[in-house]
Amino acid sequence: MARLVMKFGGTSVANVDRIRNVARHVKREIDSGYEVAVVVSAMSGKTNELVAWVNDASKLYDPREYDSIVASGEQVTSGLLALALNEIGVRARSWQGWQIPVRTDDAHGSARIQSIDPTRLAEGFARGEVAVIAGFQGVHEATGRITTLGRGGSDTSAVAVAAAISAERCDIYTDVDGVYTTDPRIVPKARRLDRIAFEEMLEMASLGAKVLQVRSVEVAMVHRVKTFVRSSFDDPLDPRPGTLICDEEDIVEQQVVTGIAFSRDEAQITLRRVADKPGVAASIFGPLAEANINVDMIIQVVSDDAMTTDLTFTVGNADFERAKAILEKNWADIGLQSLHGATDVVKVSAIGVGMRSHAGVAARAFRALADKGVNIRAITTSEIKFSVLIDAEYTELAVRTLHTLYGLDKP
Amino acid sequence: MARLVMKFGGTSVANVDRIRNVARHVKREIDSGYEVAVVVSAMSGKTNELVAWVNDASKLYDPREYDSIVASGEQVTSGLLALALNEIGVRARSWQGWQIPVRTDDAHGSARIQSIDPTRLAEGFARGEVAVIAGFQGVHEATGRITTLGRGGSDTSAVAVAAAISAERCDIYTDVDGVYTTDPRIVPKARRLDRIAFEEMLEMASLGAKVLQVRSVEVAMVHRVKTFVRSSFDDPLDPRPGTLICDEEDIVEQQVVTGIAFSRDEAQITLRRVADKPGVAASIFGPLAEANINVDMIIQVVSDDAMTTDLTFTVGNADFERAKAILEKNWADIGLQSLHGATDVVKVSAIGVGMRSHAGVAARAFRALADKGVNIRAITTSEIKFSVLIDAEYTELAVRTLHTLYGLDKP
Repeated sequence: MARLVMKFGGTSVANVDRIRNVARHVKREIDSGYEVAVVVSAMSGKTNELVAWVNDASKLYDPREYDSIVASGEQVTSGLLALALNEIGVRARSWQGWQIPVRTDDAHGSARIQSIDPTRLAEGFARGEVAVIAGFQGVHEATGRITTLGRGGSDTSAVAVAAAISAERCDIYTDVDGVYTTDPRIVPKARRLDRIAFEEMLEMASLGAKVLQVRSVEVAMVHRVKTFVRSSFDDPLDPRPGTLICDEEDIVEQQVVTGIAFSRDEAQITLRRVADKPGVAASIFGPLAEANINVDMIIQVVSDDAMTTDLTFTVGNADFERAKAILEKNWADIGLQSLHGATDVVKVSAIGVGMRSHAGVAARAFRALADKGVNIRAITTSEIKFSVLIDAEYTELAVRTLHTLYGLDKP
Repeated sequence: MARLVMKFGGTSVANVDRIRNVARHVKREIDSGYEVAVVVSAMSGKTNELVAWVNDASKLYDPREYDSIVASGEQVTSGLLALALNEIGVRARSWQGWQIPVRTDDAHGSARIQSIDPTRLAEGFARGEVAVIAGFQGVHEATGRITTLGRGGSDTSAVAVAAAISAERCDIYTDVDGVYTTDPRIVPKARRLDRIAFEEMLEMASLGAKVLQVRSVEVAMVHRVKTFVRSSFDDPLDPRPGTLICDEEDIVEQQVVTGIAFSRDEAQITLRRVADKPGVAASIFGPLAEANINVDMIIQVVSDDAMTTDLTFTVGNADFERAKAILEKNWADIGLQSLHGATDVVKVSAIGVGMRSHAGVAARAFRALADKGVNIRAITTSEIKFSVLIDAEYTELAVRTLHTLYGLDKP
């Protein structure tokens, strides 16, 4: 029998009424002949409550205890959904990460799934049971301790389960009805995409679109899991299909640009008149890497004195103060004259696999933005996307300009 | 090194501030040289919240899901206490039932502990860690599913852990400072007992005293675990010792009666003119036993027609309607004339190992109660206690009368 994974996030299971609604979605798929695994998040708000207690109990908390405490939220939801399914005549049982098991490494708080054993889940399917799986969690087998995958980890749980049980597809139910060309709150003309390529979705998620966790898209891409993003608030008996994330080849009418993403979670650091000598880049970026700070856009230009170099790069907003402190500590090593930082910057990106076969896609954007008076602080490009760093106040203008420029406004 | 088990109930861990207070109690014992296992309940109110969700999701719920959902409460507290201990410099880690493991049978919702493996806990002690154990829960190994021990089960967890790790003693911290001769809300002169024998405590708990779960006293008695009942609201640096539950031989000045208990959870059923033929008792009590209804006091007297018999017995209040329905279904089999029931009855009991060596203890009570105009509906006696069933409105009067009669008012 064909298998299906359905994933429901926190707002979709926020209370027992909503959980009953989820049960109706699951029943629809059972009635149409699937073996179903459901992956659930904690009831919305519960994870925050638990995290607040952890922070109250211990400022520098042991991440192993954090994981055990926070994973209890999904434990509750998985049990309640199993009960709600039983109540409408659908056989079901809950599964915690350690019961399956979902094996992870021991990076508590942001663990990576290493393998998911499908044996016991398959036994459950053979008994005619829906498997209701607590998302976001796994177990580190050597220590026997509960791990969690980090915020949004239930998406990754779902896709990884789909790969493990060879599911026909993985449906991610959320509070929007699919993936949009950009955030509809900024561009009312934004359209829902019927399909989007794995690579594009990966860039969209990495570059600020919040609809899916980046890691879940990576897993879907590697294992070629056909993944739908769709709405849990649709009528359970007649839902819309949502957006399919699939292979590039399965998308017939490919646009050059598929979507516009933006991220406010950026900070810019500029180092002026850095000595232009071998090893200087290592002395700057080495200590940042050691401190687990991701550096994104890097631009190096010859300084106005023509003898030194100016270096601009971006880090995540949350790492800004820490990055500055590290650089100031290594001031002498680096041999720089001044350090400037800014957090009122935004990264706007255009993504599309069509860029591979079309030249000059980014150049058109630079011109259009210049025409609107938007100053570009930094640029990065890759095969299927480009990003510009701009002043935060121009965010909406830039997003709308690019959305129109690449023909995404059209119905 | 000597080992100690400390157990803290829901009101003692009701919020993070109280959990910090618990941590200070634990630190005191660590500082005095013990290896410590702490057993915790869920934060007060949390279990009720979870149970309400379960009942909302499914009226006739699957008890396996109930257990998984409800056990999450203790999971949270165990993690938070481990963090609070770390925060004051005490090494600690949380343990869920399945991690130790605490093996139980599969009677979900009221499972019995079969064994507790001390190996991993001992390894933790060797590393200098306090073991913070989620109470109330275990695992049924054949199915790998979480079980719970029933309301108050954390007491049993604590005593069973104490037996498993050969602890010097088990301290049950609660919101009162020990075991009293009777409920101080009814008898202000009630005294805290310094010591009480296992057998007495077992009867007290069985007969209505709410300070400890009956099963926990059974386990303490079988394994001879020295158990203290004491207050978590005492100063963590200078707490009172509480009441020691111990062997009869360790109590020097033994009273005839140690305490007066009462239970409002009683219902009386009277069957009139039951055919006095062989097998009639089986036809009455067999079907009740099959339905898991416990029958307590039984009185059989010849009816006024001198040819049939009248039968009075008690069941738990919660079973009253069910018991009546079963008896009415078997009306013809039993051959009775009428059935009367009453729920406004109370069982008052006097307990004391001294009764073994003193005759006429109960007879004095019957006389004293009669003098006060209290009508006795039924009586049961055993070696170390007797109980009378009376009208509920006489509860306080009867308890005070017996408390005075047996010299328990004296300081």
